Amino acid sequence: MIRHLAILIVALATTAATAMSQQNLWHDDATLSPVVHDDGRVTLRLYAPMAESVMAVGDFATDGVDMERRDDGMWETTLGPLPSELYSYSFTVDGVANVCDPSNAYAMRDVGRQMSYFIVAGERGDLYRAQAVAHGTVSRMWMTTDEGSRRMTIYTPAGYEDGDSCYPTLYLLHGMGGDEESWLATGRVAEIMDNLIAQGAAEPMIVVMPNGCMQHASAPGYSHEGMWRPYMSGSMDGSFERHLAAVVAWTDEHFRTLACKTSRAVAGLSMGGFHALHASHAYPALFDYVGLFSAAIFRGAEGVALYEDMPAGLAALFRQGVRLYWVGIGRDDFLYEENRTFRAMLDAAGYEYVYYESDGGHTWRNWRVYLTEFAKQLFND
Amino acid sequence: MIRHLAILIVALATTAATAMSQQNLWHDDATLSPVVHDDGRVTLRLYAPMAESVMAVGDFATDGVDMERRDDGMWETTLGPLPSELYSYSFTVDGVANVCDPSNAYAMRDVGRQMSYFIVAGERGDLYRAQAVAHGTVSRMWMTTDEGSRRMTIYTPAGYEDGDSCYPTLYLLHGMGGDEESWLATGRVAEIMDNLIAQGAAEPMIVVMPNGCMQHASAPGYSHEGMWRPYMSGSMDGSFERHLAAVVAWTDEHFRTLACKTSRAVAGLSMGGFHALHASHAYPALFDYVGLFSAAIFRGAEGVALYEDMPAGLAALFRQGVRLYWVGIGRDDFLYEENRTFRAMLDAAGYEYVYYESDGGHTWRNWRVYLTEFAKQLFND
Repeated sequence: MIRHLAILIVALATTAATAMSQQNLWHDDATLSPVVHDDGRVTLRLYAPMAESVMAVGDFATDGVDMERRDDGMWETTLGPLPSELYSYSFTVDGVANVCDPSNAYAMRDVGRQMSYFIVAGERGDLYRAQAVAHGTVSRMWMTTDEGSRRMTIYTPAGYEDGDSCYPTLYLLHGMGGDEESWLATGRVAEIMDNLIAQGAAEPMIVVMPNGCMQHASAPGYSHEGMWRPYMSGSMDGSFERHLAAVVAWTDEHFRTLACKTSRAVAGLSMGGFHALHASHAYPALFDYVGLFSAAIFRGAEGVALYEDMPAGLAALFRQGVRLYWVGIGRDDFLYEENRTFRAMLDAAGYEYVYYESDGGHTWRNWRVYLTEFAKQLFND
Repeated sequence: MIRHLAILIVALATTAATAMSQQNLWHDDATLSPVVHDDGRVTLRLYAPMAESVMAVGDFATDGVDMERRDDGMWETTLGPLPSELYSYSFTVDGVANVCDPSNAYAMRDVGRQMSYFIVAGERGDLYRAQAVAHGTVSRMWMTTDEGSRRMTIYTPAGYEDGDSCYPTLYLLHGMGGDEESWLATGRVAEIMDNLIAQGAAEPMIVVMPNGCMQHASAPGYSHEGMWRPYMSGSMDGSFERHLAAVVAWTDEHFRTLACKTSRAVAGLSMGGFHALHASHAYPALFDYVGLFSAAIFRGAEGVALYEDMPAGLAALFRQGVRLYWVGIGRDDFLYEENRTFRAMLDAAGYEYVYYESDGGHTWRNWRVYLTEFAKQLFND
């Protein structure tokens, strides 16, 4: 076998060497990057023999870290030890910004950009990488109604296909510029839920991630809209909240959900937090768990009845009762003051809620933490 | 609404400008690339003010195309008009190879590399992009048996969830270095099947894409194996063919399949073609349609009984009968001679088969075409 396999590999490699981009079978092994060391240090490398400066820019250093040139034309830096986390990054080479690491097979899109990434294992990072646990299913499905078709991403927990149990459901909403891919890619939903459920730290649940921009049918590239250039689009005019109610009905019809208020949660980040907030007002009998992650509280379109009277909306919700009302925000978030004003409203009215204040700003690092903390408190009382 | 939205966008943009990589909300709009013109010309751009040379390397020119520097530091080239197709590409900047286009949100992984891509509409390209048609569901599921868990990608056609019909199934196998993501990403399975089915050019069918490397549980990053560096791995020792029979049984159990030979097809590219070939010998009662795309015919491990006697294997299959035996290869493929030898065996024994010879070599461009041509001939007699 070894001999035959070796011949095939050599043949493929030769083909690839002469027509690499066409045949796409091989890549250069001389530039190992990233290398995540056991102690949390991370070495990044880029072969750039003619460059005069190379920087690594990422979650570890938003202003960039200068890399050093080796004699062979390889640029290198060793970071850290870094705290256990998922880190996205790119290189800046002689003024060319946002260069993904050519040696790193792992990339994720955020709005209109691809970014390389790596994970430092240990604490938080372990939640964000696949472990030796049972894995749920991730599906991209189209919800078709009289109003058209819209794409969504759905996580069902391990065991869903092999049993007949019904499950509670979390509706998880993205921010402006995001889409139904965001929570999965940058939010690490599948890994977080697989790991929390395997640890017994969260209940097995379905997670439904719809698209929160009503002017789009799907994430870029997946619908008749074609390969449009992703931009900061969103819907804050009342249309998405109505749509979400239809998503809930559709989900209850197509999945084995526990179709009642006590088994439904809604949460979202930024614009998605705004959506979660106002959907809970519009449909106070729908969700028993509400999570606002760095929520854009007071950003609704003018003249939309749903957004006009916040106290009345809150009153409607809290009159019905809500098992968990969860507010998370970072101290550096540009929406911090807005959230403080909102909490003052909650406090004044005497509504109970859980407040989670973190370091940092309007970042995926925080949203992954908020999801983790929120998910642990769902459906377990 | 406009005013509030504008305030939010400006706030996000300002945050992004000061801490772009951390906040990941924005990207530079000044470097529009790629621009696909209506006539099939394509403009690529890269802002690289200090570079001395920038090349675009891609399916359109595997040796690369020199780009020209504009006065403002932007490098630019306009290609074509290019034939309608999907084109992957990267930049080479002063010797730094495999630089993805920082302005292009669309990338795909092949083995260990990320590549930017665009699609020129028209003929073939229209099959590879999402159109205004009904879309199927794409799921990543874990098949768990006594032997462990393995990940697979499954396409179910539009309407599957809303009815109770049973469907025929195509088992579609990747090549060496590939995984259960390959056919979906570079093979454009979801788009091709959605479009062919909508045109009435193919029957609605389920497509199951397992992982053909038995030493891996999943594509890189999705299992306990962690974020390993993808390499040219494969299984040609008889183990995958046995596994495929288990995949068929599992699929028949978990999906509404037409669970009989007349409603099953198996096809694969390169190593996957080898797998399809030998699985059809090992289980001659399982598949009525067999597709060999640039198949690595004679590359099995020595001493594996299944691979030892090709004439006997073929005889077992053709004695049972097979509705379609389809062989596709490119004239420049390094496996061309091997396929010619194989066809001589088929001819000598008088077995009927369809032969499809194309231009080009061992490329995804060909495999997308082979899938298209093969899929049209499935389950319709």
